[in-house]
Amino acid sequence: MGKKNVKVIVFDAYGTLFDVHSVIQKCEELFPTRGQQISELWRTKQLEYAFIQHIIGRYRPFDEITKNSLRFACEQLGVALAENQEKELLRSYLTLSPYEEVPNALKKLANRYQLAILTNGTLNMIQPLVEYHHLNPYFSELMSVDDVKQYKPSPAAYAYALDRLQCEREDILFLSSNTWDITGASSFGFQTAWVNRKKVVFDRMGQQPDHIIYNLNELIRIV
Amino acid sequence: MGKKNVKVIVFDAYGTLFDVHSVIQKCEELFPTRGQQISELWRTKQLEYAFIQHIIGRYRPFDEITKNSLRFACEQLGVALAENQEKELLRSYLTLSPYEEVPNALKKLANRYQLAILTNGTLNMIQPLVEYHHLNPYFSELMSVDDVKQYKPSPAAYAYALDRLQCEREDILFLSSNTWDITGASSFGFQTAWVNRKKVVFDRMGQQPDHIIYNLNELIRIV
Repeated sequence: MGKKNVKVIVFDAYGTLFDVHSVIQKCEELFPTRGQQISELWRTKQLEYAFIQHIIGRYRPFDEITKNSLRFACEQLGVALAENQEKELLRSYLTLSPYEEVPNALKKLANRYQLAILTNGTLNMIQPLVEYHHLNPYFSELMSVDDVKQYKPSPAAYAYALDRLQCEREDILFLSSNTWDITGASSFGFQTAWVNRKKVVFDRMGQQPDHIIYNLNELIRIV
Repeated sequence: MGKKNVKVIVFDAYGTLFDVHSVIQKCEELFPTRGQQISELWRTKQLEYAFIQHIIGRYRPFDEITKNSLRFACEQLGVALAENQEKELLRSYLTLSPYEEVPNALKKLANRYQLAILTNGTLNMIQPLVEYHHLNPYFSELMSVDDVKQYKPSPAAYAYALDRLQCEREDILFLSSNTWDITGASSFGFQTAWVNRKKVVFDRMGQQPDHIIYNLNELIRIV
């Protein structure tokens, strides 16, 4: 960071800019006392489905995976999910809360760097979300792996961003809170900053983030 | 099952024939009150590491992944893991308990079918384990994905088994307790039987097992 060759900062969306567990409130409203449990299993399965569908060579878009993982979570937890409740929960994904510091941090960063998003989500998920929070002016590109049908952390997903941004891989600083995403981006050759929001330890898969920060304000301090 | 074209029954090992959580006892002995927590995080991360290393295109063998995921689990849980304790826990993977019905069920099945194992584990993990429990006479092949360096549930892993067994994919009945493994094998074109040991619901990734059983005795009843 602060290296003069950082030209573009690329952000992961879910878990990094937006709190996927902000759906707990809606889950809790619909299914009292079960909100957190549903939200956690939903997220765990959402990721697992993306990885497994990628590995078996049968990519399915993230909106479909998000629906199927919600259905699994409710079925597994013995919660009857009515059609209108399902719609409501899926709609809440389009208004997920950004982490507290995110809007101001993006505003400041956008003055000095080109900013972009690379997400496993589909464009019909990420565009409304970014627009809902009036964050779209800060980003030059909203990029979805759906365009190449290869999920992060596969090299093809990061290569797609590189191709779209038309720069060298060293020019990119990639930010994510998801350790598997940092592992993939780092393995691909991006500079990486891990936003360790949950204060956990990093994975042991042979890759390390170049920088560790706890929220985006720290990024501002460093760059 | 009972279809006359089943020639070979191929078993997954970890979670299907052998209980990975039989390490809890050893964990508990070394780290009182923390056994279950360590064992669960260890297994979760072991699978995650295998999938992610596969997706990023940096295969690492399962014995190394098993060591690294144990180290992660202990570090994350704030448990200081001494070198001799690590060795002891990794050694316990070579003597994991088979599920109760497994030895007798294999004995009966081996009279009527060719049996084989296809595992994500390395041969230096699976051979000693099978031999320790005197199960080796029942299997014609112990196959590790390490030979092709592509983890299950990737098509290449199942293709390797098919190649080794020199039969058609419809000739194979593949058994696993791991839903992602059934999803991969079914997607590849094997007949599948899901051993639903934990009585959970099946995943929603567009694939379904051909058969659902709760332990291997039920397999005998059906074939």
